[in-house]
Amino acid sequence: MKLPEKVTLVEVGPRDGLQNEPGVVPTAVKIGLIEKLAEAGLTMIEATAFVSPKWVPQMADNAAVLAGITRRPGVTYPVLTPNLKGFEAAVAAGATEVAVFAAASESFSQRNINCSIAESLERFRPVMDAAATAGVSVRGYVSCVVGCPYEGAIAPEQVAQVAAELMVMGCREISLGDTIGVGTPASIARMIEAVGKFVPMSRLAGHYHDTYGMAIANIHASLQLGMATFDASVGGLGGCPYAKGASGNVATEDVVYLLNGLGLDCGVDLDRLVAAGDFIAGHLGRPSGSKVARALLAGRS
Amino acid sequence: MKLPEKVTLVEVGPRDGLQNEPGVVPTAVKIGLIEKLAEAGLTMIEATAFVSPKWVPQMADNAAVLAGITRRPGVTYPVLTPNLKGFEAAVAAGATEVAVFAAASESFSQRNINCSIAESLERFRPVMDAAATAGVSVRGYVSCVVGCPYEGAIAPEQVAQVAAELMVMGCREISLGDTIGVGTPASIARMIEAVGKFVPMSRLAGHYHDTYGMAIANIHASLQLGMATFDASVGGLGGCPYAKGASGNVATEDVVYLLNGLGLDCGVDLDRLVAAGDFIAGHLGRPSGSKVARALLAGRS
Repeated sequence: MKLPEKVTLVEVGPRDGLQNEPGVVPTAVKIGLIEKLAEAGLTMIEATAFVSPKWVPQMADNAAVLAGITRRPGVTYPVLTPNLKGFEAAVAAGATEVAVFAAASESFSQRNINCSIAESLERFRPVMDAAATAGVSVRGYVSCVVGCPYEGAIAPEQVAQVAAELMVMGCREISLGDTIGVGTPASIARMIEAVGKFVPMSRLAGHYHDTYGMAIANIHASLQLGMATFDASVGGLGGCPYAKGASGNVATEDVVYLLNGLGLDCGVDLDRLVAAGDFIAGHLGRPSGSKVARALLAGRS
Repeated sequence: MKLPEKVTLVEVGPRDGLQNEPGVVPTAVKIGLIEKLAEAGLTMIEATAFVSPKWVPQMADNAAVLAGITRRPGVTYPVLTPNLKGFEAAVAAGATEVAVFAAASESFSQRNINCSIAESLERFRPVMDAAATAGVSVRGYVSCVVGCPYEGAIAPEQVAQVAAELMVMGCREISLGDTIGVGTPASIARMIEAVGKFVPMSRLAGHYHDTYGMAIANIHASLQLGMATFDASVGGLGGCPYAKGASGNVATEDVVYLLNGLGLDCGVDLDRLVAAGDFIAGHLGRPSGSKVARALLAGRS
C-alpha cells in the first residue's frame, strides 16, 4: 500500500489549542509561538479566531496577532470566522484564508452553536459568498465525524453529506474532526471511505484528537487510504473540553515523528518544532502533551 | 488486509511495570492487582521476577506473590527467571511458565546484563534444559528490536537471528521489545518481516513502548502483518528508565480500546481493566499513564 509522499500539516495550536486556556496568553507570546512554528517549517498555521470576545476572550487580540506576525512567503495563516462580521474583521486584519465549522452531529450542533446542521450551513453562506468575492479561500471543519459526546456513534454517511455540502458551498478543503477522539483505525477508515465517495481525498484532512490515544494510529490508517493532510497542535495544546484531564488535539511533534519514521516529507524540522512547543509549555507552566517532546527533552536533560 | 480475529494480551504490569517503582509496593497490593487483572479477563499475567533482590528489591517478595494469588483456570502467571537459581526458585514457588531475556543490541546486552548476546544465550541454556525437564514453558524476550539507547538503529536481521536462536533453544514464543519506543509502523514492519522469515507469526509477540507515542500505531501495523499477541502494562506502568518523565510500556487499556474498535476479540473487559489500573494508580499516588483510562475516569467524575 503506497502512502502519500508529501504530507501537509495544518498547525492549529495558536487557535484551537490556545482558545480553551483559562489564563489569557499575552499577544506577544502568541506571535512568538506562530513565528517559531513557521521557523520550524509549518506552512499552514491557524493563527487566531474572529469570534465574539464574549464567547472566546482568549481570541480578543485577533487583529493584533495578525498584525504582529511577519508574513512569510509560502506560509498561510488561516483564521476561524463563524459569521460575516468575523469574516470582514478578519479580511480587514489581512487574513487570506478563513475557516468555518459545522458538526456532523445534530445534538452537537444544537448544543455547541445553538442551531441545526442545516441552519449552520445556511449561516455560512454569506461568509462563503463574501470570501468568493474577496478571493479568500475557505477551509471547512466538520466536527464529531466518528462520535458525539451527546449522541454516540455518528453515521459515516452523515459526515459525507455535511462534507459534500461544504465543498459545494466552495470550501477548498474539509477537515474531518474526531472531536472527542473516540475513533479507531476501523471507524476512521469507514468514515473516510464514506466521505471519499463524494469528496476527493486530496480535499480531505484528518483532525484527530488523542483523547483515547488513537490519533497516531488513526493518522497512519488515513495515510494508508491516501489522505495527505492532517491537523495537529504543537504540544497537544487544547486538551479535551469534554473530559477534564484528558488529551485533546494530537501533538504535532508526534505526527512529525510518525511521518519521519514512515519516510514521508512534511517539511517540518522536529527539533525546531520541539523548541516551539517548549516555548509555549514554558509560558503555560506545564509539561508538553507531546510524548515525543517529553522523550526528546528528557533525553537532553 | 485481514486482521487476526483473536488477540492475546500479555499483561506485564505487575512485573515489568512495577519493577522500576522506587517505593516498595506491598505484596498484598501486587496480589490484589494480579487478581483484578485476571478478573478483567487477562489470561497471561507476568506476576513477578526471580532475580537477585540486590538488583531488583521490588521483586524480593516473588514467592509470596506467587503463593498469594488464586490460580485461575485458563490463566498463566509467567515469571522472569534470568538464571538457573531463579528458575529453580520459581518452579519451587509454583511457576508454570518462565521468561528469559536477551538483547538484539550488543551494546545494550553489555551494559544491561554485562555480557555479549551470545554469552547471554549460553547462560540461558541451563534454564532451557531445566524447563524442558520440568515441563515448564519458556517465553523469550528480545529487547532493542528497533533501536538501542547506546547504538541507535538495530538491523532487523540481527533481531531475527536472536529470535531464531531463542526459538531453537526451546522458547514457545518470542516477545519483540521496542525497549525505547523509537519504532514507527515502517521500522516495526521491517523488523517483523525480517523475523517472520525464520519464526512463524503465531510465535511472535509485540512488546512496544509508547515513549514516542507510536505504540498503538505500531500494534495496528503489526496486526496488519498478522501478529496476534501483544505485551502491555495496565496504566502504562513502568515508565521509561532511559528518559525520566517519558512514557514506557504501552497501556493495556489503550490496547484493549484499539482492539475493541477494530472488532478483535481479546477477552478483556475494559471497565474492569480500568478499575484494576485505578487501583494501582491509587496505591502509587499518581494518575494513570493510559489515555483511555484518564478519558473514561474523567468522563465519570
